[in-house]
Amino acid sequence: MGMLSDKLKKLYGQVAECGAEVAVIESDFLRRYVTGFYSTDGYVVLEKDGCTVVADPRYFEAAKRKFHGGRIRVVEGAIREVFELLKGYTKVGLPYSFVTAASLRRFEGEGLETVDISSALRAQMLVKEAWEMDRIARACDIAEAAFNELLGDIKEGMTETDVAAILEYYMRAFGASGTSFDTICAFGANASMPHYETGMRKLRFGDPVLIDFGCKYEGYCSDITRTFLFGDDRDHEEFKKVHSIVLLAHELAKERIAAGMTGKEADAIARHYLESKGLGGMFTHSLGHGVGLQIHEAPNLSPRSEDVLENGMVFSIEPGVYIPGEMGIRIEDTVRLADGKVRSFMSETSRKALIIL
Amino acid sequence: MGMLSDKLKKLYGQVAECGAEVAVIESDFLRRYVTGFYSTDGYVVLEKDGCTVVADPRYFEAAKRKFHGGRIRVVEGAIREVFELLKGYTKVGLPYSFVTAASLRRFEGEGLETVDISSALRAQMLVKEAWEMDRIARACDIAEAAFNELLGDIKEGMTETDVAAILEYYMRAFGASGTSFDTICAFGANASMPHYETGMRKLRFGDPVLIDFGCKYEGYCSDITRTFLFGDDRDHEEFKKVHSIVLLAHELAKERIAAGMTGKEADAIARHYLESKGLGGMFTHSLGHGVGLQIHEAPNLSPRSEDVLENGMVFSIEPGVYIPGEMGIRIEDTVRLADGKVRSFMSETSRKALIIL
Repeated sequence: MGMLSDKLKKLYGQVAECGAEVAVIESDFLRRYVTGFYSTDGYVVLEKDGCTVVADPRYFEAAKRKFHGGRIRVVEGAIREVFELLKGYTKVGLPYSFVTAASLRRFEGEGLETVDISSALRAQMLVKEAWEMDRIARACDIAEAAFNELLGDIKEGMTETDVAAILEYYMRAFGASGTSFDTICAFGANASMPHYETGMRKLRFGDPVLIDFGCKYEGYCSDITRTFLFGDDRDHEEFKKVHSIVLLAHELAKERIAAGMTGKEADAIARHYLESKGLGGMFTHSLGHGVGLQIHEAPNLSPRSEDVLENGMVFSIEPGVYIPGEMGIRIEDTVRLADGKVRSFMSETSRKALIIL
Repeated sequence: MGMLSDKLKKLYGQVAECGAEVAVIESDFLRRYVTGFYSTDGYVVLEKDGCTVVADPRYFEAAKRKFHGGRIRVVEGAIREVFELLKGYTKVGLPYSFVTAASLRRFEGEGLETVDISSALRAQMLVKEAWEMDRIARACDIAEAAFNELLGDIKEGMTETDVAAILEYYMRAFGASGTSFDTICAFGANASMPHYETGMRKLRFGDPVLIDFGCKYEGYCSDITRTFLFGDDRDHEEFKKVHSIVLLAHELAKERIAAGMTGKEADAIARHYLESKGLGGMFTHSLGHGVGLQIHEAPNLSPRSEDVLENGMVFSIEPGVYIPGEMGIRIEDTVRLADGKVRSFMSETSRKALIIL
């Protein structure tokens, strides 16, 4: 065992503040966050004076290579080896939000007292470090480049699934490890369901198209939505009007959200504007959510959120208006707070009601 | 409230056997399994005399449409509405393996006694119904068709990521909703890490190629691995020899695994054969795992598994040999047990050490 890095020392400090003597991290994305090493199974045990990766045999070779000569110790094994390491400890920290109830019961079954350390991990993950910002920026760049490439390929008669497949191909080809969630591609009135499941509806001249998508780069996510028209059939004046209102709500939120605000104050900026246009009741979800290793994380930008927005936080801004059976419009960027103000990661794609053909 | 369907009646019976009066289902894939409706958030409350979907506002319209006139009631809301429905009950069943420790604590905080119903859900999901088999078969067909299409596109100089991107594009274009896990594509000695993370290594003449992939169709997964050569540089005689041994282990397992066997007996068939060839120590993972709505589920085919294999179960058969820094070979099909014997879902792709160029 050796010294902890500054990052792990800080994390251990937060774990100790939660009342735990030692932390056990089980979920894959948290292990990646803590150690930088990705594997589908395994454990990380964080003690005051050292950090141990308990690696599944399948990952042992890769883990040894990764941590060779470093400060993190590698042990081959599974939960039994974790319990060995915990001998002598009584208060074990587990992030309750990221472990199963079954896992909690297993620790309790060993006679260990458990303590929730979700807040320690959330606190440390909330404000992104520079290396994390770089990865999110890259995930956003890839998503935007893929979208622009896609625009040239969209043709009448394609299904929603075809369009999603092409978009996902470009993201993968441009360096993403995968999508950050199942791509939503909705034609026409299908877009009026905010979480529509992409289907086999075929694209027709004049259709509005809503695409909500994102990808992962070294574990970090991007999230973006664009809504546009496939050809102008001169029969979508209402769509264009509502689109311009949603876009104004989006721009207003970007302009006015500032460090120090709460999530509900941020949400209210777009919501009040939409209400003033008579569309408040049709904005049926929250303004945004944190984006990082998880596609949905803190902070929350919603009508009841007390989360305080700070420099270094990354979140989505995504006002939307949904008229059941008629239309759905959502415009979303992933953004960060820097120098007190919103800066978007998106700069290469148009947010307008583009008319493509 | 109305009558429960036969499926839900059976599930409620198993929930009651666990000692619970009512069940609350939170995770997305289990809600999909129970009701057939997919949403990222929400709850299902299963009572003796009825089933209620507590739908997040974003999904309320879609849920109402789905369950219109049916036996399942739809309520708009979140966890507070769930607690309303639980009034009068004391013993609430939660599947501990599929809810977070935080969620468990929230139920405990309401003064409710909780009971683990993971086994009820696992038992019901273990043996697949015909409609589930159809979806898995479709996910397998799509994966195989995509692989065959890919073979014609592979060219020298492509990166592992390029190859994965093309394969994933075909799966998506052929109707998959996404991958069932991050595609593993490993060239040359990279394949010696069983869970290698696909990277930027470029394909060279003579390289062995291992691809482990799968897709989802209506929530159900496929899982398949093929290992082959990109061009024959006459310098891979050892690879060819080991490949033929792994293939024999794969075929032997398929031939001999039968209903009534335990998971460890099944695992031993391939393991003993590889041991007899001096390769036992290099088969560093288990023979297989159940496949369904989850890419890894019961039954387990591993050296210590007591799971009894039955008709209607679906699992992978994936013997592998890994020589660190030299080579990795794995051959995997998703199969089912029917009439006591193994039947593979894979019939369109070659398992041989194909030489493509």
